[in-house]
Amino acid sequence: MSSWLSIPKDSHFSLANLPFGVISTGPDPTPRPAIAIGLYALDLRAFAAADGFSAASSHVRGKASSVFAAPTLNDFAALGRRFHRDTRSYLRAVLASDTPHAALLRDNEPLRKSALLPLQQVKNHLPMTVGDYTDFYAGKNHAFNVGSLFRGPADALQPNYLHLPVAYHGRASSVVVSGTPVRRPWGQVLRDPAAQPKVPALAQSQRLDLELEMGMFVCRANQLGCPVPIDEADDYIFGYVLVNDWSARDLQAWEYIPLGPFTAKNLATSISPWVVLADALADAKGPGIANDTPLLPYLQEKTRDQVLHVELEVDLTSDTTTISRTNSRFLLWSWPQMIAHHTISGCNLRPGDLFGSGTISGEDPASTGCLLERTGGGKTAMRLDSGGERRFLLDGDTIVIRGWAGKEGALVGFGEVSGKILPAEPLF
Amino acid sequence: MSSWLSIPKDSHFSLANLPFGVISTGPDPTPRPAIAIGLYALDLRAFAAADGFSAASSHVRGKASSVFAAPTLNDFAALGRRFHRDTRSYLRAVLASDTPHAALLRDNEPLRKSALLPLQQVKNHLPMTVGDYTDFYAGKNHAFNVGSLFRGPADALQPNYLHLPVAYHGRASSVVVSGTPVRRPWGQVLRDPAAQPKVPALAQSQRLDLELEMGMFVCRANQLGCPVPIDEADDYIFGYVLVNDWSARDLQAWEYIPLGPFTAKNLATSISPWVVLADALADAKGPGIANDTPLLPYLQEKTRDQVLHVELEVDLTSDTTTISRTNSRFLLWSWPQMIAHHTISGCNLRPGDLFGSGTISGEDPASTGCLLERTGGGKTAMRLDSGGERRFLLDGDTIVIRGWAGKEGALVGFGEVSGKILPAEPLF
Repeated sequence: MSSWLSIPKDSHFSLANLPFGVISTGPDPTPRPAIAIGLYALDLRAFAAADGFSAASSHVRGKASSVFAAPTLNDFAALGRRFHRDTRSYLRAVLASDTPHAALLRDNEPLRKSALLPLQQVKNHLPMTVGDYTDFYAGKNHAFNVGSLFRGPADALQPNYLHLPVAYHGRASSVVVSGTPVRRPWGQVLRDPAAQPKVPALAQSQRLDLELEMGMFVCRANQLGCPVPIDEADDYIFGYVLVNDWSARDLQAWEYIPLGPFTAKNLATSISPWVVLADALADAKGPGIANDTPLLPYLQEKTRDQVLHVELEVDLTSDTTTISRTNSRFLLWSWPQMIAHHTISGCNLRPGDLFGSGTISGEDPASTGCLLERTGGGKTAMRLDSGGERRFLLDGDTIVIRGWAGKEGALVGFGEVSGKILPAEPLF
Repeated sequence: MSSWLSIPKDSHFSLANLPFGVISTGPDPTPRPAIAIGLYALDLRAFAAADGFSAASSHVRGKASSVFAAPTLNDFAALGRRFHRDTRSYLRAVLASDTPHAALLRDNEPLRKSALLPLQQVKNHLPMTVGDYTDFYAGKNHAFNVGSLFRGPADALQPNYLHLPVAYHGRASSVVVSGTPVRRPWGQVLRDPAAQPKVPALAQSQRLDLELEMGMFVCRANQLGCPVPIDEADDYIFGYVLVNDWSARDLQAWEYIPLGPFTAKNLATSISPWVVLADALADAKGPGIANDTPLLPYLQEKTRDQVLHVELEVDLTSDTTTISRTNSRFLLWSWPQMIAHHTISGCNLRPGDLFGSGTISGEDPASTGCLLERTGGGKTAMRLDSGGERRFLLDGDTIVIRGWAGKEGALVGFGEVSGKILPAEPLF
């Protein structure tokens, strides 16, 4: 299937993708929904206002004007998987060559000019108002590597690790969209962990790290008290983003016992701006990391091999060095398994909730999802292509994560999530 | 100061209080803001619509109609401390005897009939849309008692405990208003923690517990990246509620290492419906639990002794047994200290964010804030007045927490937060 629009073969935003986001422009700073297609964003508010959905099925036609006039995708997400599917199919038909719907936009020059905006001219906003943010820890290699650093390889994984998707509640307010700069945080650090008594200092984090994760947005609510059966969990998946869950390792080491990370993680979590819908990645699934542990029934999937396979790359673009190349197949749990576990206690999900997968690492040092692993806890500096080195992130560093599935000409990609480290704010 | 309304001397809702909540009624099920006064709720939407704020200062008069037509208190909260203070003072003048404003309501019978609603006839709703929920661990006696159970008294408190307000991110979606029933959760439990290998079962929690906490709602946003100085932190406090942070101890014990509690806590968190404004408790402050540890500057308050002193009581009303009598003075940290720590990493707060204090326990068994402590981890059953006993909560149990400061005739109270345990939902 090809488009009447010229789409570069290496574009993440092929006709096979059509991810949804929220944009604004200089002349019109009001955030509104859009899809990405090739080098363009199609402004869905403008498209709907010009009767672009007039040939869509009646339920899409009836709701498109209101949900695409909203400043986020939450209302659209809450309409459910069938609505997303029908909307995406329709938009594909509008953008494809040789379909009756193509004329709607292709042959309407004023609408093309007003609604089809070069990506370079649009500003991306957070696509969803995030309800709750939950961060899982499903990257088994990462959990093993980090556990080995602290407890040695024999005790690296905790006894619960292979039985349940370990997770903790994260901070929703500090989820930011790609491009938002990240301030180096202040916090309590233990300069000499061996000294007794342990007396912390107030300092700027010296061990600021990235964390490469996949993210998933929820589109459906379950009732408080009612767990989601695993075979219905797919209906709760709106789509996926890339996540950089910035982490201050020195703050974390001092604060995290006994209740988990807090200030080390709530400084910022960056996400890519375009939500790749669940259906767009339906074929990019396969086995995750093998788990021989017998699973309790609520975590057993009827259909196996539901782990997403997305190619991932982390670049320190400020030094043109690729830090990591890996794949989301290095996750131990699928998204339906995470949903089933999150709700087994009766916890209610809501459209707009964000799940992070946990840091994704492959099997060798060049595929690790954070610097903590790559540098052995900061012991061995990583060589950069420029000749410099890094143990942790420096002020001015820019980290860009990219991700994609599929083949050239039909890539289903995320674009990127980028963030630049700014110096800490002077304190009071 | 007395009211032209008859207010029982033991009412939590004296003229010295005037807490804000959100109500609806049978004839009008739309949630709208109200204050509690004696045996009544004053419907602020109705009061504003009838020009009740016509004699208020201009900034209150100008905004009251819109913020009190909203379905939550978020818009009102976001207007800031001065606005809350002026609104509350004005409403007190309207309700007090012998003030010129009293005539506005006292002498307007149709308005009295439509806006002054018997509390027994109103339904309470969640007063705020909760942004993020953060649960602290500032009850030092609780932390010591629980730490002693797991590690013995010598290592009960972790090395960081006296240096920073330990906290973790909680779940906002499952914060519910008083009266909402709580379903016993399912989850993974380790039936025999000593057995090797450790193999969990899927079970209904058998160690369901209450947690007595105070809660604080935030009314002001700080910018991401910019910590809140401790001496400005008071401006971020909208007001306070009582919290019951239901906890499944068996789920928690298995899941919480290394990233903290997850399904054990996200089943439900109940709060009292009336937000007692910060100003109403301005005089109910004093020393908290003494801390000889030198604090880092960002946690040092210019004005010491900022810990709230609120009398607290926990009743198992389904058995007419008082489980605990204690006081919020048994907290190690003040709310401004918690705000300063929460934001030291640059984390942004938003109006509607909820902080929990952590479980509050006094110095003897009859003043502990949860059953885990009271029963020594379930080892020693607690005797009930009926002759029965409890180790943890049973289906059908109703827990009611009450809290108040001040003296008879001028009580500043919270009313109550209640919750009844329902049997677990059958699983699939």
